[in-house]
Amino acid sequence: MGIAPPATMNSVTPRKSQRAAKRTASAGQLLQATSKILAQRNVIDVSLSEIAESSGLNSALIKYHFGSKDGLLLALVRRDAASSLSRLNDLIRMKIPPEQKIRLHVAGVINTYIRYPYLNRLIHLLLNNSSEQITQELANFFVKPLVEAQSKILEDGFSQGVFRRVDPMFFYYSMIGACDHIFFARHSLEFAFGVDEITPSLRDNYVEYVADMLMGMLRKD
Amino acid sequence: MGIAPPATMNSVTPRKSQRAAKRTASAGQLLQATSKILAQRNVIDVSLSEIAESSGLNSALIKYHFGSKDGLLLALVRRDAASSLSRLNDLIRMKIPPEQKIRLHVAGVINTYIRYPYLNRLIHLLLNNSSEQITQELANFFVKPLVEAQSKILEDGFSQGVFRRVDPMFFYYSMIGACDHIFFARHSLEFAFGVDEITPSLRDNYVEYVADMLMGMLRKD
Repeated sequence: MGIAPPATMNSVTPRKSQRAAKRTASAGQLLQATSKILAQRNVIDVSLSEIAESSGLNSALIKYHFGSKDGLLLALVRRDAASSLSRLNDLIRMKIPPEQKIRLHVAGVINTYIRYPYLNRLIHLLLNNSSEQITQELANFFVKPLVEAQSKILEDGFSQGVFRRVDPMFFYYSMIGACDHIFFARHSLEFAFGVDEITPSLRDNYVEYVADMLMGMLRKD
Repeated sequence: MGIAPPATMNSVTPRKSQRAAKRTASAGQLLQATSKILAQRNVIDVSLSEIAESSGLNSALIKYHFGSKDGLLLALVRRDAASSLSRLNDLIRMKIPPEQKIRLHVAGVINTYIRYPYLNRLIHLLLNNSSEQITQELANFFVKPLVEAQSKILEDGFSQGVFRRVDPMFFYYSMIGACDHIFFARHSLEFAFGVDEITPSLRDNYVEYVADMLMGMLRKD
């Protein structure tokens, strides 16, 4: 057998943590494969065997890591949302006027939908069809941190005397709804407005429109 | 057999139109049965046999009238949207200030979602999973008339010198998105805000919030 490679010569504990690292890596591979497949499709329609084939991993690993396909899809939302939420938390700490934070936040939400073209549909699918447990998890790792971050910006603007006081819940639904709908209903862009795609210039104009609309509500006269 | 009832004594043509009337009635019955079932459920999950049983009609009639279950669901959206669109068209012709029309329109959209609790999910489901043909039909009988009506209100406000000029497409997505999202994402109401249901007072406050937000954008200073 010659000399075994160092990795296999370690004691049980490192071997276990190596196995754990490999398992974590395989979870990431499954998410990445799912992300890649969904990014190429217009509907959230992907089978466990497709994911297994594309990732080069056994589909039993999906059950092992995520429990079910819905669990995998939820984990994908969590992965994609995490980087956006982390940028939002950076934004909150920046030393810029509250109005600029609102504008950057609108751009951040809209850019997230553009960066992950399936994310919007995936969230809608999970909210529409899933168990209460999945909906609750989605609220915990996505909606609540988003609402907290927004509330912080609103509070700062109010305490600096530049924003009126508004209900953070109403702000959340109207702001996310406005950002979301142009992506969710994007078939209607084509059929009702003759617009083929959300180009960078359309995106920039819509970001400005939504931010102006929110500021018209927030700004103290 | 005694004397046959007058209806069966008519000539072929009236009998044919009677049959047509009966068929139209059965289409209405199928829609009403579907509406009743969906109004009691939190998800759009209804089988052809449930609809048949609840309507007392043969499920083959669904195929006859609507082609498929998606066709039936689309016809239900069309039925429910028609009465709201007709009220919107009455609103456009009213001799009231454009700002009041905007406020009544926001209330109208939100009340439509309350009146038909399944309508929001149903539209989302059809937009998410259906053929391009169904999406296009939805755009034709629902989105386009809505956009035309909104454009008329925006145009009136502009020509009366009380509104700024805004892009009707941006107005559409931000306004409908804001009205839609609190219903679509209503699980998050509970999990993220501890709100159990959209009460009449919550509804009224949200209508006012959205209308104020839109007017902040539209009103000429």
